[in-house]
Amino acid sequence: MINKTITILGSTGSIGQQTLEVADHLGMSVIALTAYKNVELLKEQERDFHPDVTIVGSEEGGEDAIIDIAKSSDADIIVTAITGEAGLKPTLAALETGRRVALANKEPLVCAGELVMETARKHNTEIIPVDSEHSAIFQCLHCCAGRESDRPKQIKKLMLTASGGPFRNKTPAELRDITPEQALKHPNWTMGKMVTINSATMMNKGLEIIEAMHLFNVKPEQIEVILHPQSIIHSMVEFTDGMIIAQLSHPDMRMPIQYALTYPGRTQGLTRSLDPTKLSGLTFEKPNPDIFPCLALAYRAAKAGTKACAAMNRANEEAVGLFLKNEIPFTDIPVLIEKALNELI
Amino acid sequence: MINKTITILGSTGSIGQQTLEVADHLGMSVIALTAYKNVELLKEQERDFHPDVTIVGSEEGGEDAIIDIAKSSDADIIVTAITGEAGLKPTLAALETGRRVALANKEPLVCAGELVMETARKHNTEIIPVDSEHSAIFQCLHCCAGRESDRPKQIKKLMLTASGGPFRNKTPAELRDITPEQALKHPNWTMGKMVTINSATMMNKGLEIIEAMHLFNVKPEQIEVILHPQSIIHSMVEFTDGMIIAQLSHPDMRMPIQYALTYPGRTQGLTRSLDPTKLSGLTFEKPNPDIFPCLALAYRAAKAGTKACAAMNRANEEAVGLFLKNEIPFTDIPVLIEKALNELI
Repeated sequence: MINKTITILGSTGSIGQQTLEVADHLGMSVIALTAYKNVELLKEQERDFHPDVTIVGSEEGGEDAIIDIAKSSDADIIVTAITGEAGLKPTLAALETGRRVALANKEPLVCAGELVMETARKHNTEIIPVDSEHSAIFQCLHCCAGRESDRPKQIKKLMLTASGGPFRNKTPAELRDITPEQALKHPNWTMGKMVTINSATMMNKGLEIIEAMHLFNVKPEQIEVILHPQSIIHSMVEFTDGMIIAQLSHPDMRMPIQYALTYPGRTQGLTRSLDPTKLSGLTFEKPNPDIFPCLALAYRAAKAGTKACAAMNRANEEAVGLFLKNEIPFTDIPVLIEKALNELI
Repeated sequence: MINKTITILGSTGSIGQQTLEVADHLGMSVIALTAYKNVELLKEQERDFHPDVTIVGSEEGGEDAIIDIAKSSDADIIVTAITGEAGLKPTLAALETGRRVALANKEPLVCAGELVMETARKHNTEIIPVDSEHSAIFQCLHCCAGRESDRPKQIKKLMLTASGGPFRNKTPAELRDITPEQALKHPNWTMGKMVTINSATMMNKGLEIIEAMHLFNVKPEQIEVILHPQSIIHSMVEFTDGMIIAQLSHPDMRMPIQYALTYPGRTQGLTRSLDPTKLSGLTFEKPNPDIFPCLALAYRAAKAGTKACAAMNRANEEAVGLFLKNEIPFTDIPVLIEKALNELI
């Protein structure tokens, strides 16, 4: 039990639903829930969790109402789990409250990283990342025992692990014929559609590079992506002395969600313990740039700045949309992104 | 460069020599060096590192002189790298100074754990462990972000990793014929003779269970030993929420030694970076109790208390001595230890 209240922006998505499950497990009171258009599920959540307020974003005035609730909710923790760029304004509003923001929405950092971090600094707001990779890094960085301000000096590099998705062993030629149905099957994680495709192209990891750069104040060159098909090590940090600290657990988003809610405390979670002796082994590979061209595009955007990152993200969302509608082949996703980047930088 | 001075008790042993190498790399001034009987090497170290004092323990009055220097040396950091029970009194003397003690000597904690920890508490002395496993755990525990006093509540268990030494795939029958020459070849680490045999029997890990119990204030039941033949993960901590934090690096004692000297800072070390993608994979197994009976003996002693731990350690030292002189077979080492324990508990 933690005696705190919670507001979830985007409670009907995959992360939102799991956050409610964890909040319930922790005995937290729910202040407000918002959804974009899944009214059915939102009503169900209302019945189950008795929030003071629910808001449907797709209704008239709904988007403004979400921003208002982010700003005025007196919840101790605001979880921002809205998908896409629509999450930016509510996230900024949440950060302005000075309350803890558990950030599960990638786009605010990708599309407006400086603004988001500056807003958090100005209002002295803790951002606790919910992504499993960033949660892992956030935890590992506490192994810098000195003052927080000394931390950046102690970081040599961040190693973001990636399952590699379902296609890491394909050839570039085989990739052309991937159908949306094939791409939507992820071996280790259960996620939303957009995220699952982003995981198959590894654009997901590309966005995470940009997020990590802002969250942990490191350069893109200090971030390495490592394929780790078992999804047990969720990311690692190498310090200047060569020591590497890693975070391991079963791949289950309820764990980083709970950590973001209980930090700096920890308490019994919903997931069974990981027994390393039951694993068949942990392996690591360099990602093949011919299979995952999105990764290089993300580095390029990260180095070019936030405008490029936002453009890349928009081009990716469009391209994935077209792919899901069977209008372009899987391999055209990076082609369209590259085109968008070439127009800008 | 760290602007600190160092005294090394036991500078001619394996850890002592590597500590000098690290201290030199860090630009530290050496205040005092002590050896037991390797006068030749001590003289060489005197020429190379210009300590104010050197002491030979085996000379008349030498043992008292070592205790005196531990007590009176004005070094910022005292490294206690004396092997065996002879290290206890100098370690206690060092702890009484209130200066940082980098503890590389297992026996003080094994044979007098309560006294050692109580002495450290009384004098507000930082003990930084040098053993790779305990250094790993020490680092991982900083991922408890809360107050230090909340830490024990957040620990579910410690996972001490063990290479399993050269014999983990033998049958009990094959173990009988092991010669000292075979037992002295360790696949991953370069160490002293006693430590190498202890690693082959896994009594080393048994002693580490007892050390960890005292250093980190946990129960023996909260410590699990896991075979990890690659010696890349040096130990792990599982927290109450199921998150596991692990420390990885090449197996090179200069890394935990340096950490004990630079803590809470970190700086460029002497070891090359670990590239996980160059590893063939990390595996974990439960240790086979028929191959490693010493492990169960150590748990038994740990639960019975410090007297039993001290008796076990003494019996082990004697038995290993007999084995190295070819007077008993390898498999009699645990037999002699069990006998000693049976007499006591």
